[in-house]
Amino acid sequence: MTHDSYGDLVSSLAIENDKRICLLVMDGVGDCDNDGKGTALQQARTPNLDTLAATSALGLSIPVDVGVTPGSGPGHLGLFGYEPTVYNVGRGVLSALGIEFDLTPRDVAARLNFCTIDADGHVTDRRAGRISDAENKRILAIIRQKLSPPAGVEVFLETVAEYRALLVLRGDGLDDNIGETDPQAVGRPPLSPTRDAHADSPTAKIVEDLIAQVRAILADEPQANMILARGFAKFPNWPTFAERWKLNPAAVAGYPMYRGVARLVGMEIVAQPTTAADICAEAAKALAHHTFVFAHFKYTDKTGEDGDLPAKITRIEEMDAALPSLLAADPDVLLITADHCTPPSLKAHSWHTVPVLMKAPHLRGGDGAPFDEVHCRSGQIGTIYAKQLIPLAMAHAGKLEKFGA
Amino acid sequence: MTHDSYGDLVSSLAIENDKRICLLVMDGVGDCDNDGKGTALQQARTPNLDTLAATSALGLSIPVDVGVTPGSGPGHLGLFGYEPTVYNVGRGVLSALGIEFDLTPRDVAARLNFCTIDADGHVTDRRAGRISDAENKRILAIIRQKLSPPAGVEVFLETVAEYRALLVLRGDGLDDNIGETDPQAVGRPPLSPTRDAHADSPTAKIVEDLIAQVRAILADEPQANMILARGFAKFPNWPTFAERWKLNPAAVAGYPMYRGVARLVGMEIVAQPTTAADICAEAAKALAHHTFVFAHFKYTDKTGEDGDLPAKITRIEEMDAALPSLLAADPDVLLITADHCTPPSLKAHSWHTVPVLMKAPHLRGGDGAPFDEVHCRSGQIGTIYAKQLIPLAMAHAGKLEKFGA
Repeated sequence: MTHDSYGDLVSSLAIENDKRICLLVMDGVGDCDNDGKGTALQQARTPNLDTLAATSALGLSIPVDVGVTPGSGPGHLGLFGYEPTVYNVGRGVLSALGIEFDLTPRDVAARLNFCTIDADGHVTDRRAGRISDAENKRILAIIRQKLSPPAGVEVFLETVAEYRALLVLRGDGLDDNIGETDPQAVGRPPLSPTRDAHADSPTAKIVEDLIAQVRAILADEPQANMILARGFAKFPNWPTFAERWKLNPAAVAGYPMYRGVARLVGMEIVAQPTTAADICAEAAKALAHHTFVFAHFKYTDKTGEDGDLPAKITRIEEMDAALPSLLAADPDVLLITADHCTPPSLKAHSWHTVPVLMKAPHLRGGDGAPFDEVHCRSGQIGTIYAKQLIPLAMAHAGKLEKFGA
Repeated sequence: MTHDSYGDLVSSLAIENDKRICLLVMDGVGDCDNDGKGTALQQARTPNLDTLAATSALGLSIPVDVGVTPGSGPGHLGLFGYEPTVYNVGRGVLSALGIEFDLTPRDVAARLNFCTIDADGHVTDRRAGRISDAENKRILAIIRQKLSPPAGVEVFLETVAEYRALLVLRGDGLDDNIGETDPQAVGRPPLSPTRDAHADSPTAKIVEDLIAQVRAILADEPQANMILARGFAKFPNWPTFAERWKLNPAAVAGYPMYRGVARLVGMEIVAQPTTAADICAEAAKALAHHTFVFAHFKYTDKTGEDGDLPAKITRIEEMDAALPSLLAADPDVLLITADHCTPPSLKAHSWHTVPVLMKAPHLRGGDGAPFDEVHCRSGQIGTIYAKQLIPLAMAHAGKLEKFGA
């Protein structure tokens, strides 16, 4: 997709009022079946969610498109009402968000992998033996010390984890038309950042020089003796959430990646809680001053990634128990959903449709308990794209004008 | 639609693994109601399909778009994961596929109709009285004998059926910017292939000359004294199925049209069985050497086209009985569906949504028996586009990488 015609249409209809919308993301909450015993949501005891479902609308959402598993970036952009294949930010920026590196508009970011090359300069290990975080930090310190950046350009090098690092160039007039250097296979030399269509980029020439310096600096290292760079990207200049939806947004999120995607669309970060109880309490507080609150709960995803079904069930039950404090703030519309599913059986994000609960005025009655993947299938929301949820919530909150006369 | 952004996105995420996907097409299997007695699937006794449904995902697919009835070409291209309004091949090529004429990249094909013109050259019958196949062959033989093609161009003329024939020009540098000559109404002369935007086409001039020759050759014929040509097209240069999905595909199809659409996307034809039992046996064999097998069963469509509901029910039951031999090969993902519905009450293809059954890992439990149009409506797949089925199957087979970080 090359433009976001749906989002542009809805944005053109947006009007301001004082109704308050809360988007509670139980990250990765959806699941597939577990050995015939059902999903985590089906197995969890969730009296508050079920009571809420009784008078709410239910449905399923498609994060990006059928069969497509989203990363956290695209998953949240969809939830924020941005077509994720159009508002597709480079990996460099997502890496920066993930470690809470504060990017500016003068920055170009890239994801780095340490790798191993042989005497001929051919890559023999694209991950440098998966070196430790400590080794990563040691080597970056050496590079920082010896590197000579060109005049007017600051270079930042930050550890992400293991063999992964972040490169940020800061300066005036930098561009991100820079070739990825990862040859994507061993036995080949790293690619040139200035090749083909990138030959015209002054920044690509800077990167070429820096990589040559790094290679010389690391020549005697036994494992991490070279770097591969990909996903060069500038901090995107997108319409902010406030402009797009005429909402006054606040983010309540305890983990860097989610604060990062919130900042990508210009949301103010008002609190950084991590527990279900604190998240609901902070979201309730934020609703006093904002017409939109994004609240993020990480542990339903983390337990899924860990393949720990009992822990995922426990985390769902924690959020269920915390819900009354959020409900007490009485948001006009409350969306409870996720950016994607994280089935413990897959230990990873998945492509499955995501359960959605929407408490709102003007419903066709309540869809009834329980709140789970199978029951959501027959709910009044139907199966829609994640990017359609904010517009739907805005409609129920009286925040969208009629289209046409 | 002008480009296939969904297909391109999913293709960019495709990775290879050894999981095997089987697509069993029961051509035209879907139906609408028959005199209050239900669809053919509802009336058929299908114990194996029903047992499979109990542990599979069900849903409905839209072949092209709501209300649009597909021909066999677009119907199958959708199933192969190609947006059929973008990957839209000319009628000339489909006619060639239908009679298994082996097109090369140097060929331009067109569909011919014999017609009748009067002394003024006006068309009086666009189908030449629906002449017989034998008459068609007799006349083509005369044309072949007397026609003088230009140097460097071979001309092929082949009987399709009744008044329909295939024209193929073979040579270097031929183009398909050639005007259709059918005036679409009687009382008018045939149109010129070189008119308007087609004036610049050297191949249109060749066609103009050939048609003039044919007119002279057939001048004394009482019925078929002229030809009308449409759907000029070259064999398309599309991404192959193997490139697009990183699958190693095999086709098991007994009828020329379906082998033809399989060849359009570069599939290898490994067997040409026509009975349900042979199709399932050959598909099972092919799964030993291929990561994707397309198996095509024609008779559920043919009996629909014949308006023969009892025969359609029998054919469904034949495939049901044959299924265990395919299941014994244990494909990792098995899709059972159709390219479109062919209701016996319509005696034709239709626009109705098509039942889908998918046996796969990572489901939300089984959707339960029976496998029919009404029960499929509430299945976990929902109602999706046919082009989304291969991506969904690939997701369940672990063949798609995450989108974004």
